[in-house]
Amino acid sequence: MTDTTIDQVDAIARAAKDAFAVTSRTHERTRADWLRRAADAIDADAEGLIALAADETALPASPRLAGELARTTAQLRLFAKVVEEGSYLEATIDHPDATATPPIPDLRRVLRPLGPVAVFAASNFPFAFSVAGGDTASALAVGCPVVVKAHPGHPETSRRMAGVVSAALAEAGAPAGVFALIEGFDAGLALVDHPAIRAVGFTGSVRGGRALLDRAAARPDPIPFYGELGSLNPVVITPAADAARGGALAEGLAGSFQLGAGQFCTKPGVVLVPEGSAVEAALPGLLAPQGRLLTPSIAEGFAAGADRVSGTPGVEVVAGDAAPGGTASRIAAVSAADLVAHADELLEEVFGPFTLLVRYRDDAERDAVLGAFDGNLTATLHHEASEDVTDLVTRLEGIAGRVLFAGWPTGVAVSWAQHHGGPWPSTNAQFTSVGATAVRRFQRPVAYQDAPEALLPDALRESNPLGIPRRVDGVLVLP
Amino acid sequence: MTDTTIDQVDAIARAAKDAFAVTSRTHERTRADWLRRAADAIDADAEGLIALAADETALPASPRLAGELARTTAQLRLFAKVVEEGSYLEATIDHPDATATPPIPDLRRVLRPLGPVAVFAASNFPFAFSVAGGDTASALAVGCPVVVKAHPGHPETSRRMAGVVSAALAEAGAPAGVFALIEGFDAGLALVDHPAIRAVGFTGSVRGGRALLDRAAARPDPIPFYGELGSLNPVVITPAADAARGGALAEGLAGSFQLGAGQFCTKPGVVLVPEGSAVEAALPGLLAPQGRLLTPSIAEGFAAGADRVSGTPGVEVVAGDAAPGGTASRIAAVSAADLVAHADELLEEVFGPFTLLVRYRDDAERDAVLGAFDGNLTATLHHEASEDVTDLVTRLEGIAGRVLFAGWPTGVAVSWAQHHGGPWPSTNAQFTSVGATAVRRFQRPVAYQDAPEALLPDALRESNPLGIPRRVDGVLVLP
Repeated sequence: MTDTTIDQVDAIARAAKDAFAVTSRTHERTRADWLRRAADAIDADAEGLIALAADETALPASPRLAGELARTTAQLRLFAKVVEEGSYLEATIDHPDATATPPIPDLRRVLRPLGPVAVFAASNFPFAFSVAGGDTASALAVGCPVVVKAHPGHPETSRRMAGVVSAALAEAGAPAGVFALIEGFDAGLALVDHPAIRAVGFTGSVRGGRALLDRAAARPDPIPFYGELGSLNPVVITPAADAARGGALAEGLAGSFQLGAGQFCTKPGVVLVPEGSAVEAALPGLLAPQGRLLTPSIAEGFAAGADRVSGTPGVEVVAGDAAPGGTASRIAAVSAADLVAHADELLEEVFGPFTLLVRYRDDAERDAVLGAFDGNLTATLHHEASEDVTDLVTRLEGIAGRVLFAGWPTGVAVSWAQHHGGPWPSTNAQFTSVGATAVRRFQRPVAYQDAPEALLPDALRESNPLGIPRRVDGVLVLP
Repeated sequence: MTDTTIDQVDAIARAAKDAFAVTSRTHERTRADWLRRAADAIDADAEGLIALAADETALPASPRLAGELARTTAQLRLFAKVVEEGSYLEATIDHPDATATPPIPDLRRVLRPLGPVAVFAASNFPFAFSVAGGDTASALAVGCPVVVKAHPGHPETSRRMAGVVSAALAEAGAPAGVFALIEGFDAGLALVDHPAIRAVGFTGSVRGGRALLDRAAARPDPIPFYGELGSLNPVVITPAADAARGGALAEGLAGSFQLGAGQFCTKPGVVLVPEGSAVEAALPGLLAPQGRLLTPSIAEGFAAGADRVSGTPGVEVVAGDAAPGGTASRIAAVSAADLVAHADELLEEVFGPFTLLVRYRDDAERDAVLGAFDGNLTATLHHEASEDVTDLVTRLEGIAGRVLFAGWPTGVAVSWAQHHGGPWPSTNAQFTSVGATAVRRFQRPVAYQDAPEALLPDALRESNPLGIPRRVDGVLVLP
């Protein structure tokens, strides 16, 4: 363990600020090139990176880590496309209109980079939500230097990845200071406090995220904090779906909640099933053996959480190892009434291979359970076409950022329409940490009034030299 | 004074939540109609509203308040257009792609309304930033019920306006609870704390805004707070501009900083002029007599602020009444060196008819002064085409959300490209409170994965029944 000192954090943050003077003026094509070069360099070192990560996290090298690495480089390349496409600049031009109330001068608005960004890496995705993950990629994409706080669960992987990214960026001509890695708890706090840092991206627990969010909000100049925190990812299985395909649903659920040893932010943690469901009956035979969890503290947290839920009045263990302190897969069940009565204890995320079935007898009980939820990253519905689920979908949409049908929430595509975020406590902002629109977190609008053409950013010049979509006098115009 | 009780606030916030179940499912055309009907009703009662506001605020009925009322109804009508145009939904469709890394399911993303919004009205715009102002209009536009906390500076105007808006919305068929007015300091705090409230819009002082921001952030479920707070709105006059048109610039400055008795959030509060400038020489003859300020506490704050700045070492009063405690217009001046030495005292907004000239001798002094600024709503440059101001514009862009050329910052157009926001403390978020994009503050993304067509919102159905611009498989498609 080599914690970064506070003085080093200061020097790194100042260097990031200096780099911002350069990165904030780079051409879109230049930054797209940086992202692609970083992706190529990561791919070139894939074997070494995956071996290190497998050793440090206990996640299987293949397909788990190999897939995650491929996802990570695909993500960098998607953001390169986003930058080149140019809509992310939200370029908007109003020509003068003296007849408007009040009169409109020549006004041109564009999104500019916010400044150096602090990124707190996650434990459970040593590549995709870590040193070169989505937060880093989306911040670099828009011209923000990045300082990553490594997760202590995979320090060697983090250092190797930082070396690969730093070298690739330097070779691509990016300025010194555009990217750096720090390590250590106190160094992370100093980073959030540093005046040069203009935003924070975080993936982790509600407790840790809340502490950093409060810290960012308490600065003399509060800065935006984008936390991807805890989520229960409720799944609703209707009586008709249970009757039609209970066995297949049980298999799907067993696969999803145990994937990666249940260490996904989108793990289905609470599943609403009809009383006496075929799903519940089929589950006991479907549990897989589990290896060690990511870190000793995650293993302790899992055991404590699974025991806490299992020991709550009305809860029974229906499958898996119920021995206190165990780390094997476990499924518990509770009635809708008991869930509602003990919502505070039962509706708290248990990170690891555990899920809670909630047995409901009718729509009213089901809706009462859903009413007890706070926000989630996802909500999933398994129903049959014969059922009217309009109101149910509205309820699910109210408590989640992504609503899935006939699927399982683990597995988050990286695409233009993806949204990985939801009401508190799953996130604390109306933004995503995955997908094309993640860049908006690190941009701020600037309007230019009556600016001479030569002083306008390229995106706003009359001739549209970037060839990007723009809104002109209220009308969207394609290049 | 009839303060709303805490019980009443609770009932009002609950009613807003109930209304949200309806407003969140309304058709775009329906909400556009609500906004236009409210605008028509306000126009129909213009005479009475203006008379009340003139009496309560001491602002002149014409052109000041008549213009503000026209601006307010134009704003409601602009948001009706924004809703109908549909880009504000950011509708995005990714069709399935099994070849992507990782594979992409059918994913469709749209922005949905956040929930009931609390709006804290401003003192200085009894119409445009008050009961039926931009925050209210943009929240209603996207389907969020609104509870307005009236500003105590114009209670009768607020009540009358609330009556007009409530009646118009009810006649248009909007649900009960969609709009309400509350009064009183404690009622406002209770509103920010209320679980049903999902966001806060605020226009006012840094101190008041910071207190509410901290309160919103400290909730068990933190909610977004959008504050439009304090701004110095720096103006830079170059030597060439001063030489070419110092007299005209002095007239422009005198008009801008005294407009509405200096009670604009965009008042030019600090003006960088070359040492020995023609602007400074011409100012003393240009001061206008001032009437009473908006409220007794604003008058006290103005006198205290103007006296504080005037009494800071190195500062001299160059025009206007320097008598302690006065409310007449005043212009002070200070050297660049003294400004930098006493930045904490001098770079604090004085709300009212006061501005501070900062005399600089060269570019280095000018840049040192700009380096002492925090964030601002605006920054203005007066230069001549013969001067290279590229670096200077970069500096201004770094400390402001709107950069103006050859103009004055008072007067904020309501349009698609407007941005009224800037780095802390002028605002605390990367959003605007004026212009089309103000709606984004009150929306959250939701993605639907593999949803049956019939369960999708209209905006995301394959046939595009709303006829709106959408991004399909990464490509922007016009209707």
